Amino acid sequence: MTGRDRAGEQAWHDHTPGYTERLGAAQGEAVRVRVRVTLPVTGVQLKFVRVGEVETAQAREVELPGSAGRWFEAELPVHASRVRYAWTLLFEGDHLSLTALGLHHTRRGFRDWFQYLAGHVSPEWAWRSVFYQVFPDRFRNGDPGNDVRDGEYEYQGRPVERAGWGTPVTKAGDIHAHYGGDLNGVTQALPYLTDLGVNGLWLTPIFVSPSNHRYDITDYRRVDPHLGGEAAWDELVGAADAAGVRIVLDGVFNHVGNEHALFQAALASEAAPERALFTWRDEPNKPPYHAFFDLPTLPKIDYRAPEAVQEFLNGEESVVRFWLRRGASGWRLDVAHMLGAGGTDEDNLPLHRALKAAAREERADAYVFGERFFDPEHALDGQGEDGAMNYHGFGLPVMQWLSGESHYGVPSRLGGTELADLLHDAHHALAPQVALSMFNLLESHDIARALFRLDEDRTRFLAAFTLLMGYPGVPCTYYGSEIGLSQHTPGMMPWCRESMPWDEAQWDLGLREQVRARIGVRRETRVLQEGSLRFLPAGEDALALLREYTGADGRAERALVLASRLSGAHPVTLSLPAGEWRDPLGGETVPGGEVTLDAAGGRLLLQG
Amino acid sequence: MTGRDRAGEQAWHDHTPGYTERLGAAQGEAVRVRVRVTLPVTGVQLKFVRVGEVETAQAREVELPGSAGRWFEAELPVHASRVRYAWTLLFEGDHLSLTALGLHHTRRGFRDWFQYLAGHVSPEWAWRSVFYQVFPDRFRNGDPGNDVRDGEYEYQGRPVERAGWGTPVTKAGDIHAHYGGDLNGVTQALPYLTDLGVNGLWLTPIFVSPSNHRYDITDYRRVDPHLGGEAAWDELVGAADAAGVRIVLDGVFNHVGNEHALFQAALASEAAPERALFTWRDEPNKPPYHAFFDLPTLPKIDYRAPEAVQEFLNGEESVVRFWLRRGASGWRLDVAHMLGAGGTDEDNLPLHRALKAAAREERADAYVFGERFFDPEHALDGQGEDGAMNYHGFGLPVMQWLSGESHYGVPSRLGGTELADLLHDAHHALAPQVALSMFNLLESHDIARALFRLDEDRTRFLAAFTLLMGYPGVPCTYYGSEIGLSQHTPGMMPWCRESMPWDEAQWDLGLREQVRARIGVRRETRVLQEGSLRFLPAGEDALALLREYTGADGRAERALVLASRLSGAHPVTLSLPAGEWRDPLGGETVPGGEVTLDAAGGRLLLQG
Repeated sequence: MTGRDRAGEQAWHDHTPGYTERLGAAQGEAVRVRVRVTLPVTGVQLKFVRVGEVETAQAREVELPGSAGRWFEAELPVHASRVRYAWTLLFEGDHLSLTALGLHHTRRGFRDWFQYLAGHVSPEWAWRSVFYQVFPDRFRNGDPGNDVRDGEYEYQGRPVERAGWGTPVTKAGDIHAHYGGDLNGVTQALPYLTDLGVNGLWLTPIFVSPSNHRYDITDYRRVDPHLGGEAAWDELVGAADAAGVRIVLDGVFNHVGNEHALFQAALASEAAPERALFTWRDEPNKPPYHAFFDLPTLPKIDYRAPEAVQEFLNGEESVVRFWLRRGASGWRLDVAHMLGAGGTDEDNLPLHRALKAAAREERADAYVFGERFFDPEHALDGQGEDGAMNYHGFGLPVMQWLSGESHYGVPSRLGGTELADLLHDAHHALAPQVALSMFNLLESHDIARALFRLDEDRTRFLAAFTLLMGYPGVPCTYYGSEIGLSQHTPGMMPWCRESMPWDEAQWDLGLREQVRARIGVRRETRVLQEGSLRFLPAGEDALALLREYTGADGRAERALVLASRLSGAHPVTLSLPAGEWRDPLGGETVPGGEVTLDAAGGRLLLQG
Repeated sequence: MTGRDRAGEQAWHDHTPGYTERLGAAQGEAVRVRVRVTLPVTGVQLKFVRVGEVETAQAREVELPGSAGRWFEAELPVHASRVRYAWTLLFEGDHLSLTALGLHHTRRGFRDWFQYLAGHVSPEWAWRSVFYQVFPDRFRNGDPGNDVRDGEYEYQGRPVERAGWGTPVTKAGDIHAHYGGDLNGVTQALPYLTDLGVNGLWLTPIFVSPSNHRYDITDYRRVDPHLGGEAAWDELVGAADAAGVRIVLDGVFNHVGNEHALFQAALASEAAPERALFTWRDEPNKPPYHAFFDLPTLPKIDYRAPEAVQEFLNGEESVVRFWLRRGASGWRLDVAHMLGAGGTDEDNLPLHRALKAAAREERADAYVFGERFFDPEHALDGQGEDGAMNYHGFGLPVMQWLSGESHYGVPSRLGGTELADLLHDAHHALAPQVALSMFNLLESHDIARALFRLDEDRTRFLAAFTLLMGYPGVPCTYYGSEIGLSQHTPGMMPWCRESMPWDEAQWDLGLREQVRARIGVRRETRVLQEGSLRFLPAGEDALALLREYTGADGRAERALVLASRLSGAHPVTLSLPAGEWRDPLGGETVPGGEVTLDAAGGRLLLQG
């Protein structure tokens, strides 16, 4: 019994109030936890790990008339920063363990057990948000007066260029072509964004930098004048605040741009104290200092130096603190997995803990998440980042399944069963608050656009977008996809960074309405924001998720999230919990039990 | 495709020389790794993780005429203490990842990837050993002159008793009844043990202690006089050495006995410097110091005190060093998961790293493994213990499946498929040297005897014993099981600690011959000692393992290990690699391909 499928009806426990009294209780407290079972149990025990031993507490049966099944509860002692626990169900002649993996006859390894994080505070506003990623140079030009001029300066030995809005991106312009987008434009677009339903913005870097992407920062405490400078930032923060939109900035703390004053000082003299902030070396064909992918323009910060930790992460005037004081609501951390000491990723997790502690001191609900392009599980124990960009456990596998290719364009016959396996594996290994704080995305400025990967097929894109809105974690959509912005050349960057058209004649208004509707459902539906996750069997061409949020009285709100990778009509037969379900997009109602639904374009059904 | 089953024929990689040039290469070196595929690949890539990024190396095809399939090889840079890697197989229109979990269309999480440990040295003698666990008070009384006398001293307010050899153990005598077994007896039994095929002994504690189990140590540097004292130890070491038998001692480093001088000094005065070695507290109904399961006789050592670390673990004259100098070959570490600072398990892993480093300084091939009754995965990164007692990933689930009950006697309908799932999950998460250094056992002084749990059924016991000899890791059998020693009362200790009969009339000689034959095969067969592991589908009532050791030329030695949980004849049909197989127990030969074998009592087949 692998538990993913039928087991959810037989026995269930999750983090919502019906099952877990509250999240984040302080160390030393106890929390009431419950399990619901429909199997003929003769008794139930709670198992938990303390000082490496498994302890047992007997669970008592309680009445929760609002729901099917029998309920048992016990007290979980929150004795450590992370407590692992599981349930044992006793039967005549048998017993089963219930873990985050499902029901098992064996005692599974601790990775599969449920986990409770002591004293953990989550940025819950992010769970209720839908984010929109803006690549500032390409989103909207609000003030042509601040545009980079042709040849205004040189970078990497080449003059920068001004590119005309709407002209296709070119390989040659990868770094040097500036389209003129700015923060003034983002402010102007706020009504557009709030109309779409967006209430969170992730801005890729906005600080003084020579390139168009601005991941090579010269001054972390000044907004690039070509984006409108400090005044545009302040105006944006004020307008966004008034519109109920929060802004997350992009923190490039692995490396600086080579024009940064600290690096220039370090280069100027071997005696300079700034030398300690970088890692010097003498290796053939490499810069004399560690650098991001050995690019000389991107010298890597060495966090062995306490000055580096203070300057960027947690000093009284650190960059992290500076912008939270100036109105940012959180940080997306560029290549979070690379931060470290001595030119490596050594001390990565302690650095992230220090960073988050400083961020939370400045803003109690700061949302801090790392770019971790690969499996981030080891970093997500609740003490460092709140979550991570969910490439590994959502965006990459979902798009691979939908498009039939990896993000590198390598063909793949990944099917729905294996997709669900991988998603479940990544999800169940995280504490619930962490899983809900994962930053989900289908596409970004670093990988090919979803529409392009799906052959501009709106149906499959909307299936993907339905999953994005329906999956546990914080959804983020990439600028322009909602109106059909795509790319003209295969590959990742710079092709995925076209300028956003503002002539509505160029928009796919039908697509935008579908996107807007799905965002609206997500914004209004607690079970999508905070509910648990279960996969229902749906074959190789569909994916079906059951989300559930159970109140303390045992009554559950539920959502079904269904998506197909086919373009045409795709009837899928599912076994749903009993009771009426309503389709907030189409408006009809559907009975529970065995139902057949057309999964094309994605479906959302709600109950309770 | 979960990979466990068919995938092994389609693509394979393991730690043996055909696939991995060598184990334990130093950090900074590179190692040639290979994969063998029978699928129609168009290319193969090696993926490995460096500073949190996945890098790709193209693999080149090489000819290894001795084996089926195509071979590809690449260089793995050993750039960190543990390097994670996987293979990507490219096809027309598809690609797959090969990890330790098998073949997948998705990029699995890093836990599932292969792992290479840099600079890791394994106690390979242990892989080639079969251990025998002796509980000294109950194995053999070699010198009645050193026996504990009735009422010789008091412990816990009760006089100790002398128990007659062969009298059944009683609950009342749990701690106080001394049967008179001693090291002199172990020395006398060496011919018996070597005849059985044993070449490793694990002795539960032998140091001065008031109880019969001696986990409450008064003096760690003296052998208990009731076991024969230092002279008996020296004699045993000499004789064992001559007989090719190595001895592992039991290190009780979580707590001392309350009669220990350091604890007595700490009790005597609040000003005593020895106070720092324990953790004092004021809690109702508990001893005023942290103690093992709050037992006042077992005060817990506080490793916040550097003196504690030095005294027991890694000081120049530490207990760990002392007995390795005196002839021990390694340490089994009692409740290894509990060691820590401040009354908790804090600093557990650093303490074990310090312990192992000291042990290896004294004896380059010291074998150090922890008692970790529960999932030990987090502790086994190669830097601390070499392995752990394999209760979690072998003994408990295997015996649960065979007996239909957990080790607590709770009924279970665990089947073979789920058993294989759990075993595979625990196994594949470990680096190969660690997996081969796990200390496998079916029973011990802490849990009920295997024969008793199997209703004295020799057939099922031999099935279990076949798995013990055939599973990756270091097998250990518990004294007396080979001649049918069991227990008369259900439960764990003290019932599993009967005295060993030395009247051969009481022995089951047929059982002993079967045990001896299986030990002999294990001792002679490299593939059982060092081979890789793959599970073959064998239904719910049987378990089938394929072990493989592939030389640098691509030629493989193979073993099939098959066991049934049924008492009667149990034909199982398996699909074996081609070529002739021989049965070293029965003598017959079996062709490869689809064969039907009687799995009752366990089967071993060898090839190559």
